[in-house]
Amino acid sequence: PLCLCWALGLAAASAPPNLLLLLMDDMGWGDLGAFGEPSKETPNLDQMASEGMLFLDFYAANPLCSPSRAALLTGRLPVRNGFYTTNAHARNAYTPQDIVGGIPDSELLLPELLKKAGYVNKIIGKWHLGHRPQFHPLKHGFDEWFGSPNCHFGPFDNRALPNIPVYRDWEMIGRYYEDFKIDLKTGEANLTQIYLQEALDFISKQQASQQPFFLYWAIDATHAPVYASKHFLGTSQRGLYGDAVREIDDSIGKILQHLQKLGISENTFVFFTSDNGAALISAPKQGGSNGRFLCGKQTTFEGGMREPAIAWWPGHIPAGGVSHQLGNVMDLFTTSLSLAGLQPPSDRQIDGIDLLPAILQGKLIDRPIFYYRGNEMMAVRVGLYKAHYWTWSNSWEEYSKGIDFCPGQNVSGVTTHTQEEHTTLPLLFHLGRDPGEKYPLSFVSDEYQRAMEQISVVVQQHKATMVPGEPQLNVCDKAVMNWSPPGCEKLGKCLKPPKSDPKKCFWPH
Amino acid sequence: PLCLCWALGLAAASAPPNLLLLLMDDMGWGDLGAFGEPSKETPNLDQMASEGMLFLDFYAANPLCSPSRAALLTGRLPVRNGFYTTNAHARNAYTPQDIVGGIPDSELLLPELLKKAGYVNKIIGKWHLGHRPQFHPLKHGFDEWFGSPNCHFGPFDNRALPNIPVYRDWEMIGRYYEDFKIDLKTGEANLTQIYLQEALDFISKQQASQQPFFLYWAIDATHAPVYASKHFLGTSQRGLYGDAVREIDDSIGKILQHLQKLGISENTFVFFTSDNGAALISAPKQGGSNGRFLCGKQTTFEGGMREPAIAWWPGHIPAGGVSHQLGNVMDLFTTSLSLAGLQPPSDRQIDGIDLLPAILQGKLIDRPIFYYRGNEMMAVRVGLYKAHYWTWSNSWEEYSKGIDFCPGQNVSGVTTHTQEEHTTLPLLFHLGRDPGEKYPLSFVSDEYQRAMEQISVVVQQHKATMVPGEPQLNVCDKAVMNWSPPGCEKLGKCLKPPKSDPKKCFWPH
Repeated sequence: PLCLCWALGLAAASAPPNLLLLLMDDMGWGDLGAFGEPSKETPNLDQMASEGMLFLDFYAANPLCSPSRAALLTGRLPVRNGFYTTNAHARNAYTPQDIVGGIPDSELLLPELLKKAGYVNKIIGKWHLGHRPQFHPLKHGFDEWFGSPNCHFGPFDNRALPNIPVYRDWEMIGRYYEDFKIDLKTGEANLTQIYLQEALDFISKQQASQQPFFLYWAIDATHAPVYASKHFLGTSQRGLYGDAVREIDDSIGKILQHLQKLGISENTFVFFTSDNGAALISAPKQGGSNGRFLCGKQTTFEGGMREPAIAWWPGHIPAGGVSHQLGNVMDLFTTSLSLAGLQPPSDRQIDGIDLLPAILQGKLIDRPIFYYRGNEMMAVRVGLYKAHYWTWSNSWEEYSKGIDFCPGQNVSGVTTHTQEEHTTLPLLFHLGRDPGEKYPLSFVSDEYQRAMEQISVVVQQHKATMVPGEPQLNVCDKAVMNWSPPGCEKLGKCLKPPKSDPKKCFWPH
Repeated sequence: PLCLCWALGLAAASAPPNLLLLLMDDMGWGDLGAFGEPSKETPNLDQMASEGMLFLDFYAANPLCSPSRAALLTGRLPVRNGFYTTNAHARNAYTPQDIVGGIPDSELLLPELLKKAGYVNKIIGKWHLGHRPQFHPLKHGFDEWFGSPNCHFGPFDNRALPNIPVYRDWEMIGRYYEDFKIDLKTGEANLTQIYLQEALDFISKQQASQQPFFLYWAIDATHAPVYASKHFLGTSQRGLYGDAVREIDDSIGKILQHLQKLGISENTFVFFTSDNGAALISAPKQGGSNGRFLCGKQTTFEGGMREPAIAWWPGHIPAGGVSHQLGNVMDLFTTSLSLAGLQPPSDRQIDGIDLLPAILQGKLIDRPIFYYRGNEMMAVRVGLYKAHYWTWSNSWEEYSKGIDFCPGQNVSGVTTHTQEEHTTLPLLFHLGRDPGEKYPLSFVSDEYQRAMEQISVVVQQHKATMVPGEPQLNVCDKAVMNWSPPGCEKLGKCLKPPKSDPKKCFWPH
């Protein structure tokens, strides 16, 4: 490929670029050919990487979907923006149908801020930041929406539990399994094709206008129940999960080609990543791969939060770049603002950093990665060192039921089934020599002492300035489920909610 | 890069190409950037892959060094060429200093055969096919040798155990730790630089002549005790092991550049691979990575035998190719003969196949992979299915001493510490959906029945026609150690051997 090298650092001085964020669901670090997946079935993403920049040390903000997504759109850790629970210690929480909370009005979301720079914002796919009326994405900066507020679990009976609605903008236009089919037996669903067409149409429409766009393509074919459309079923060596990945890879190839065909690829910043590690609990049929990393989704080991990541912006990002910058989905908030010529809010703590120096100039910015589980900082990475202050995979009770977040993996004293506190003497790993977190450093070594001195300062500062937000994921109530979403009347799809009965949500992990 | 597409299948019709085989020692599938190593520190090998063809399903002939190397050079499984033991069931064996056996005269080695086509053959590095006079590489087809007959273990006291000799051609020119320094404390040794210079010199010399060459570059910096030269020490995120890999990567870059500078790259077929999986027992400081595969060296799980592999031949092999051909180091025997315009011997069973249709025409040749441990066929791969007829990592006794071939990994009923027989109902894995061998297929599934029907035929045929060779690795005797190698007189380095006392070798694994 032809490599162009432009003047750097001036990106935002001229017209701000379009922003296209491709956010995968439960896709793991090891799911792409470019990251060593041994079937190597992602030619389009691998090409995107070879034309752009590969991030090898990029992280989710949380090992679970809703908090990670809330963090991405606010630039703030879930413990700040409210996407966590205090119902029990160190518990992952998200936004099931009966969740009462959602994204607080006080939070400033990326699309809200981008509006000030004239952006038109669309979300395609999964919102996951609360489904009650006040949490609707169009109330938080998005101009358009096609997709759903929750995961595509189901089918439900619409009595004990309603099926999940699919929205177009303000109103629902149907429900999963009723109007938007997912065949759990065969794994067939054409949703990715619908999401692809939505993206192509939006890009075409926006290209015709003079306004820049922000497109948040948050598709969910790789979240259980995994699905693919007929054309892709049975095409992967990896089974149904691989079929879903192949369809996504193909779709992303089509989107990038579309940008090129429209002549706007050099004015569109594209970033590909995932919301959390692969759900090994669903593997191998319904879950992906975290490569050589330890455990998966729900855990604060590398497999739970290290993500595949690719930046693509022809003419600006040098082709074939590889970055070891420690990155986080929260950085996409700050980086997007920077590209739009905007400053991040100064009235609150923002955890995301501007990655442009790393992306455009190959700089390495020193910054830590915090690994939270609910209200607890479980671990921190500083440079190549990672210190675990708490370890936990899941409880013996859950584990004995077959719930295993680390199938085939067992590191004594590390993948613990009780919450183990190490705050006085953290477990320390060197992720260069030991990316799999298998060999804790000796507590009495000089290396341990030196590394922990440095890390302790980072952690002290982090804790001293931490002001947790109001926890949004504590209360559940069947009355708030998707019984009668706006637009249900027109479709005759309004259901009668039960009486309100708010309770503490139960979070086992 | 410019992609040239030549007429295929005619390679051997014109002047035969030079053959350059880069054989790594204990390097694992996951050690290169191109295979997903998260430090991505192998730019030269990654470029070699992007200019050549990446093999994702390439195997060692054995999970241990000597047998795999003997198989490579004979094109025959160790159980045929004698590189195995019958002292106990399913035991790995190799050529320590007190081994009495070695490569039998009756075996035809690749360099012996290549001579018929006018090749000049050199081995640089580790021989490992026996160190007694009759096993000398120059008695088995090589014209030149720089390197050692055994591993670079030491330092020894030259009383109970002699230090390993380093040969130039027929005679030793010194010993490890005495004349060829390896600093076990710092990991410093400049051996890779010496091996590099030997390669460059040989290539230059041969280029000046009119004869084609076969260079077998069998270096050992990644075998414990791992080493690197001063310039590379401390340069890798991965520690000393990574330093060794970086130096090798740099050296291979220099060798390929040398071929290009001399204008012979389009007439030199280069293949890169390793002799067995990474030695996880030595990880993380002295051992590499098998990526997401199960266990390591010494085992017949994927981590023990799946290897990184790259074919490079500018102008002949299309750039950027990826092959899922099931390959084996034994294929390098047959493929090399094919390139030289020679037929493999017809008077014996040859296990290696000619890979040229896969390399030059992208064909997929149906062939099984057999996983042996000593005298037992432990497993077989047919297509994407792998059936384990026996499972064993190592004994409880060894394991309780801390010898762990699967650190951090534990798959119930699979990574067993007793030899478990599954011959009536093999454990079956689908390596596409489950490359990590974590989820055995249900015995009662249709898929199991269908796959095993196909596999059983392959195994029956294999066993029915198997004629084991005379085992070479049964007898050990301290008298045969490297006490007085040829040339020791000139150096004053002859040592007095003890009285002969042949015994059965003890093979714990």
